[in-house]
Amino acid sequence: MSAAGRFLTLEGIEGVGKTTQVARLSKALSDRAIAHVVTREPGGTPLAEQIRELVLSARAESLPDTAELLLMFAARSVHLHNYIEPQLAAGRWVICDRFTDATYAYQGAGRGLGTVSIARLESLVQGKRRPDLTLLLDLPVTLGLARAQARNLGAAQDAPAADRFETQRVEFFERVRAAYLARAAAEPDRMAVIDASPDADHVAAKILSALRVRSWIT
Amino acid sequence: MSAAGRFLTLEGIEGVGKTTQVARLSKALSDRAIAHVVTREPGGTPLAEQIRELVLSARAESLPDTAELLLMFAARSVHLHNYIEPQLAAGRWVICDRFTDATYAYQGAGRGLGTVSIARLESLVQGKRRPDLTLLLDLPVTLGLARAQARNLGAAQDAPAADRFETQRVEFFERVRAAYLARAAAEPDRMAVIDASPDADHVAAKILSALRVRSWIT
Repeated sequence: MSAAGRFLTLEGIEGVGKTTQVARLSKALSDRAIAHVVTREPGGTPLAEQIRELVLSARAESLPDTAELLLMFAARSVHLHNYIEPQLAAGRWVICDRFTDATYAYQGAGRGLGTVSIARLESLVQGKRRPDLTLLLDLPVTLGLARAQARNLGAAQDAPAADRFETQRVEFFERVRAAYLARAAAEPDRMAVIDASPDADHVAAKILSALRVRSWIT
Repeated sequence: MSAAGRFLTLEGIEGVGKTTQVARLSKALSDRAIAHVVTREPGGTPLAEQIRELVLSARAESLPDTAELLLMFAARSVHLHNYIEPQLAAGRWVICDRFTDATYAYQGAGRGLGTVSIARLESLVQGKRRPDLTLLLDLPVTLGLARAQARNLGAAQDAPAADRFETQRVEFFERVRAAYLARAAAEPDRMAVIDASPDADHVAAKILSALRVRSWIT
């Protein structure tokens, strides 16, 4: 029986380059013959993606903040139970684009739901499961939003309508960023803050350094 | 400004006749010119019905019990916020086919999730909102299931496939019934136990008696 895989998550506000860095990291692991899968939250399985759709799609009826929070954790429960845990048990690394730190940052700090309810839901859904390493890609908010906007304009021909989160304002993302940084400061062993302002090659190199100092790769 | 409406829920295991009695009660209120609406859980609004579909529909992917619980409360949050509270505020009575007592009975006792998590979710989603009166239609399990089966056979031509809850076994419903009765014993002012074994006319009369002793109708 192989050893359990490692559970890595990437976090950060819009425009920090998570999608690019997830792909770079996956390539680097493949080059080293490390078995792994790439997934994302909310979503990650067909059922969890259906729940994601309910959260992110525009609709006539409003979605109360509490309902959004519960849907997020329902999708996470499905994702963990049906995909992440079996992959880790099979010895594969799991690289996940956003996880529970995003809930603390977006729903907790961004929407002001506070951390007590989120911590209880985290415990209910995850038990003691936490990421082995969380890479927090950090950028000033105005720079991140400018990059996200440039990306959306570039893809405007076939882009879907901007989802609810993308349309939030700068003050919202300032709260989100501050919450991410506070969590990283409180859990420095689990969370590595990566300056996302240099070009993608430099950021990818710093991510590999964070794995190398833990002796996970050579 | 009119007075706030009253919030009534009907509960009970399969086959006790909730749907019939909801219709009878609605007719009795209409006869007395009491403004009211009829709704159901899980569901009650288009968005909440979408969440209900995720819970009840058969699918290839399994739904963890915890995810089911969170989806139930997400639907309830939407239902309360977008429908029940505005109706009550407008002075209408709300008659709801199942509510949180069903979660304690089915997910808590039936599936063995326990009451601590449910109580926390109830507080998170409902604040201090509870039904003003809950009518618990009570029947021995074997009698209720026999009635439900007879109804399903009678409607077999155009009935959808039996949903996940309808296919559970007798022991499950024994736990559900016992949990309902224990809740009624603990909250006798809020919950009225109605013997559902007589014919529908007798049951309807006892429901109206429960409203009359509270001086809600004449």
